[in-house]
Amino acid sequence: MTDLTTLALLELHGSLADPTLESMNFLNEVAGRHPGALSLAAGRPYEEFFEIADLHRYLERYQRYLTEEQGLTPEQARRAFFQYGRTKGIIHELVARNLAVDERITADPESIVITVGCQEAMFLVLRALRRDERDVVLAVAPTYVGLTGAAKLVDLPVRTVPGGPGGVDLDELAATVRRARAEGLRPRACYLLADHSNPSGLSLDLATRRALLELAEREDLLLLEDNPYGVFATDPDNRPPTLKALDTRGRVVYLGSYAKTGLPGARVGFVVADQLVAAADGSRSLLADELAKLKSMLTVNTAPIAQAVIAGKLLEHGGSLVKANEREIALYRENLARLLAGLAAAFPPGRGVTWNTPSGGFFLVVDVPFEVDDALLETSARDYGLLWTPMHHFTDAPQARRQLRLSVSLLTPEQVTEGLRRLTRLIEDRLG
Amino acid sequence: MTDLTTLALLELHGSLADPTLESMNFLNEVAGRHPGALSLAAGRPYEEFFEIADLHRYLERYQRYLTEEQGLTPEQARRAFFQYGRTKGIIHELVARNLAVDERITADPESIVITVGCQEAMFLVLRALRRDERDVVLAVAPTYVGLTGAAKLVDLPVRTVPGGPGGVDLDELAATVRRARAEGLRPRACYLLADHSNPSGLSLDLATRRALLELAEREDLLLLEDNPYGVFATDPDNRPPTLKALDTRGRVVYLGSYAKTGLPGARVGFVVADQLVAAADGSRSLLADELAKLKSMLTVNTAPIAQAVIAGKLLEHGGSLVKANEREIALYRENLARLLAGLAAAFPPGRGVTWNTPSGGFFLVVDVPFEVDDALLETSARDYGLLWTPMHHFTDAPQARRQLRLSVSLLTPEQVTEGLRRLTRLIEDRLG
Repeated sequence: MTDLTTLALLELHGSLADPTLESMNFLNEVAGRHPGALSLAAGRPYEEFFEIADLHRYLERYQRYLTEEQGLTPEQARRAFFQYGRTKGIIHELVARNLAVDERITADPESIVITVGCQEAMFLVLRALRRDERDVVLAVAPTYVGLTGAAKLVDLPVRTVPGGPGGVDLDELAATVRRARAEGLRPRACYLLADHSNPSGLSLDLATRRALLELAEREDLLLLEDNPYGVFATDPDNRPPTLKALDTRGRVVYLGSYAKTGLPGARVGFVVADQLVAAADGSRSLLADELAKLKSMLTVNTAPIAQAVIAGKLLEHGGSLVKANEREIALYRENLARLLAGLAAAFPPGRGVTWNTPSGGFFLVVDVPFEVDDALLETSARDYGLLWTPMHHFTDAPQARRQLRLSVSLLTPEQVTEGLRRLTRLIEDRLG
Repeated sequence: MTDLTTLALLELHGSLADPTLESMNFLNEVAGRHPGALSLAAGRPYEEFFEIADLHRYLERYQRYLTEEQGLTPEQARRAFFQYGRTKGIIHELVARNLAVDERITADPESIVITVGCQEAMFLVLRALRRDERDVVLAVAPTYVGLTGAAKLVDLPVRTVPGGPGGVDLDELAATVRRARAEGLRPRACYLLADHSNPSGLSLDLATRRALLELAEREDLLLLEDNPYGVFATDPDNRPPTLKALDTRGRVVYLGSYAKTGLPGARVGFVVADQLVAAADGSRSLLADELAKLKSMLTVNTAPIAQAVIAGKLLEHGGSLVKANEREIALYRENLARLLAGLAAAFPPGRGVTWNTPSGGFFLVVDVPFEVDDALLETSARDYGLLWTPMHHFTDAPQARRQLRLSVSLLTPEQVTEGLRRLTRLIEDRLG
């Protein structure tokens, strides 16, 4: 073995020494060591409604769409499934329809790039925006680890902006932009989830959305709106429009995912990038086309077979993921309601245990009057049979050391009730 | 429109101004404008043998494998198809078996990372190896554009080493390594295709392979062996072992692709990275595990559905892509033989037209005594109904301005004969 080629970690890219990765490894490792524990940690979608037979039906549905609705010959349809395809993807028209139906977003299909999950979309956008060492990206804290990871890959520093109870502190955002500029840096964009954020569970109200768009215009800043959970609103008919739906100036780059709403195993996401890019010779292109150039050097294109599966699911439900997820939405709603009611019953005011009240999505944050560290998670998994996520993994903010994130997506309502029972016991034992 | 957010191309990442991309766009654009032209340009695999019904069969075969051979419960099998999976991939055991059967490579399944095509594998390896501005990667010229593109994404300079008639000039390689070191740079690896290279069509003989491995050991250099075409040897029983099969010291990082042998539309590739990585605290990990960390920030994992399709195809053929591609191998062999025989008949010695004689694969290079530029390609497409690729798109070497690359992968034998007729006319008209 000593003869084998050995590389020094210190001579490999710096992202490999990043603590974010250690966080995720630790959390996965704890979960792996306690397979019997109930998971209020996992952010994966509920899976009991999936059937392998669905795959076949989705593929056939898309095949019929290509030949019967799009007028392709069988040979052309076969080529769409099997060959290298358009770098920007082949289901952009269906994604645009989906955005119109579910999100009130009017997107030019040509401004859409289909990506390998939303993670690749984040990478492409950050890769494009990171020109040199003067560039930074802002992110509302606590921040989704995928954004932090993608930024590490391109050596792009992330400056966090406090979220606060409203989801984003606009004064702090403006101040952060100005501070960065005063240091000679270029804050290129601010990343956030406006709906049912991971990990905070918070959503922005309509006034905050409008004010944020105005701030972006005033400060000449892009907003990177990531929206994997929007369709999981508790009250789907009364959720505020996405930032992108409100955006009249092209300030918002919209990051979409079908991992929670379509199929995680298809790894299909997308980005709507309708901004213009001006070359020195005066010619203009869509930012989406520039991102596609980067994608051609990264993954060439998103597996057409995976795109076909998502397309079939969209087609089966008239382009609506709200319709496609009726059972899931009802389940998550019930789970969240159970969790909120159970917490209220277990911890009346004055005990020092508080939590926020998300309007949908998978996540909720509980504040407790004692330290929430990795040792407590270990104890919880081993002695109480319960997994959750210490918030300090998502942010350096001091209050995060007394917060835990709960997720309701992978459990049945009965399991949520049992999880709550275990959580109550864990907390009560520490309140003394 | 003037109010829309506009970004300056000069303030985006430098890779977006790279001429490699313009090359590919130009070539695609010419092909797009002449859809009726015969293509001796396309490097895509022959597609007439693909059937959409295959997809269903492959998915079912893998499902049966999981439940009947691997002992998974139906729930576990469903989770394998639908949920986020292991970052390194779920078909690593099958890929290892495939490498043993077809390539005489003994690979620990844990050293394999399944990627979104080989392109992502190249990106991951180069991202890991590019720590700072002192790092460079070497590549045998003419070089596959995908490598050049991936290097651009991580700001890693590529220094080319002449290939020459033997596929790689070892003296020049050693000299290039030493020159780079004398400049204070770190040449981290040398990229090449040892079998039926794209674009040259050349293969390394066994002696050269052994000498190259010795050189890599002596100079403390990694070799990045990319092998998408190895199974398409004209004489499959008498091809030399891959570099990786000959590698006893862990000098070779092996890049694999199922785009030509499996299904392009699945976008599944892989990397075998069994090198060790030593951390400052003395702990060691597999390079594959470090690459998986990067992948977790880039695409999270390769679509399990796409992996399942490739797995099904492998399982149907006892793990052998040589068996799975019997019809394709026979077709490419006949096409290549026709092309070589036709060139010999059309251009006897003394006319100034020469070409190499690949032992398999898709590509062949023709030398002509006149300039081969983009205008000639345009003329060829418009007036002769024939597409091919000017070699200057792959290398700056002066002789490339008089070379054209031909590909035989997308045509029937009859179409090859017709393409040859058109090519002969094009060349004859220029020889005068």
